[in-house]
Amino acid sequence: MELLFLGTGAGVPAKERNVSAAALQLLEERAATWLFDCGEATQHQILHTSIRPRRIEKIFITHLHGDHIFGLPGLLGSRSFQGGDTPLTVYGPKGIRSFIEVSLTVSTTHVKYPLHIVEIEEEGIVFEDEQFTVETARLSHGIECFGYRITEHDIPGPLLVDKLLERGIKPGPMFKRLKNGESVELEDGTVLSGADFIGPPQKGRIVTILGDTRYCETSIRLAQDADVLVHEATLAAAEEEQAHEYYHSTTHQAARVAMLAGAKRLILTHISSRYQGEQCAQLLEEARDIFSHTELADDFKRFSIGKFVSPSKRSE
Amino acid sequence: MELLFLGTGAGVPAKERNVSAAALQLLEERAATWLFDCGEATQHQILHTSIRPRRIEKIFITHLHGDHIFGLPGLLGSRSFQGGDTPLTVYGPKGIRSFIEVSLTVSTTHVKYPLHIVEIEEEGIVFEDEQFTVETARLSHGIECFGYRITEHDIPGPLLVDKLLERGIKPGPMFKRLKNGESVELEDGTVLSGADFIGPPQKGRIVTILGDTRYCETSIRLAQDADVLVHEATLAAAEEEQAHEYYHSTTHQAARVAMLAGAKRLILTHISSRYQGEQCAQLLEEARDIFSHTELADDFKRFSIGKFVSPSKRSE
Ligand SMILES: [Zn+2]
Ligand SMILES: [Zn+2]
Repeated sequence: MELLFLGTGAGVPAKERNVSAAALQLLEERAATWLFDCGEATQHQILHTSIRPRRIEKIFITHLHGDHIFGLPGLLGSRSFQGGDTPLTVYGPKGIRSFIEVSLTVSTTHVKYPLHIVEIEEEGIVFEDEQFTVETARLSHGIECFGYRITEHDIPGPLLVDKLLERGIKPGPMFKRLKNGESVELEDGTVLSGADFIGPPQKGRIVTILGDTRYCETSIRLAQDADVLVHEATLAAAEEEQAHEYYHSTTHQAARVAMLAGAKRLILTHISSRYQGEQCAQLLEEARDIFSHTELADDFKRFSIGKFVSPSKRSE
Repeated sequence: MELLFLGTGAGVPAKERNVSAAALQLLEERAATWLFDCGEATQHQILHTSIRPRRIEKIFITHLHGDHIFGLPGLLGSRSFQGGDTPLTVYGPKGIRSFIEVSLTVSTTHVKYPLHIVEIEEEGIVFEDEQFTVETARLSHGIECFGYRITEHDIPGPLLVDKLLERGIKPGPMFKRLKNGESVELEDGTVLSGADFIGPPQKGRIVTILGDTRYCETSIRLAQDADVLVHEATLAAAEEEQAHEYYHSTTHQAARVAMLAGAKRLILTHISSRYQGEQCAQLLEEARDIFSHTELADDFKRFSIGKFVSPSKRSE
């Protein structure tokens, strides 16, 4: 599991930062990429990465501002042109369907894969399968804007084969029953409990990716205990008033959300183009004053999200 | 007058060539830029040029394929965000209005300048003022696709002041009447004809920019005597059959249009990404076999279109 940022700027593209898009790479988990927002030229950014458009399985749109959606029609068309034939689902606020449909219809773009569009009407679970649950809730951005909480389900622990072999038990149907957690009786009358021969479950990871937003309670709820929280930090800490006026957040506000949510790691994105070079380093420092495990996203920066190792030590 | 190519590829963006857009820089003529097509990330390409989005006065769309229009919503929004407040007119086939309007509405993009959208219904003159006439006609591309012929009006010759001074005539109202072509009578009874004191008119330039098309008669008509013809050359000369099937042109077909139209110069664009490096040089050679004054456009390549100097010698 890896986060790869494709656009980390705010509002309009700049040379240093493109408009919003981030890829959650789930290659090991499901040989798929999930995209969060798709600003103009996201497909261009992808050309400079290892992402294969045909692997993009889901696109979650936080809100309909142009810098978050204008790359959608092009990417959807190119995915087809490049041979993508597996289903793709786009989730987003009401309006995303007409934008996609009008764009594809007017341009006579006929995608050759099943394209599903889900307009989110209610907060709650928008997707769930045996591996992941994706929940959403409304943030505070002037227009409808969603945050997404991706929860990986716990993976059951492995059968402790060595321990069974030590006890002289041979591979066979008994292994399967024990792995299912059942108890089995040996020929000598001993009863073995499955629980004793299964390793600890591997805790699923939680990744919270929020759209543009003012500081709000919903963010804290969505980010509760998250392994990684991706939060916008359009402005510096001193610009709280301006952030409020334009429905954005400051570095301090993002950091406060991470802290109050008990998140393990915070990644700042959606950085205003007024901040360059050293000033970006300063934004990061501001956030770290409140929440030390903060990092700043740049275009093409990758963040590996390690598997749970032990309750006291998570790999990065 | 200068042509600056922003995207010279075909269909989907590639690292070397972006999707279609070309800027006709009319800075000396009217302090304006006219854009022809606006594929995705045209505004990103502009970031690497001296073009100022606020100076873009007109955008002519040849056809509605995604690689020619998906950059429009972003560019229109950014032009406003960056302080553009003068009117902008977009010309294009029927459907361009709903694409723009839905994109701007869904994204709540409120542009702060007067935005006019002209859906072209008839061939002929789509724009005319004291400087320029823009005519259009339908090409052959499977969907409705227009070519544009931009004719600069002849500029009347300058008053030959030195010649008048030699004759002892002093600056005054008489100068003005002579410049208007009138005849004036001097105190000694001599009659001077304006025509004798006005230099030769400066011939207006003709620039023809065609959309995607098969080889067709209309192209030749639009390019008649053009100073510059911009023609697509998606495929090599040998791929005539494939070009026909996909409604595109080969290098030889583009060159034949330039030759039969009596154009002075041909610029090839819309090059398939299958051709790279040396192969592009080969495309150029193919066209030059038929029409020697051919050049090949690359992204960010500029072509100065010089003023008429004498009937036998035009500057480049
Ligand atoms: Zn926004
Ligand atoms: Zn086309």
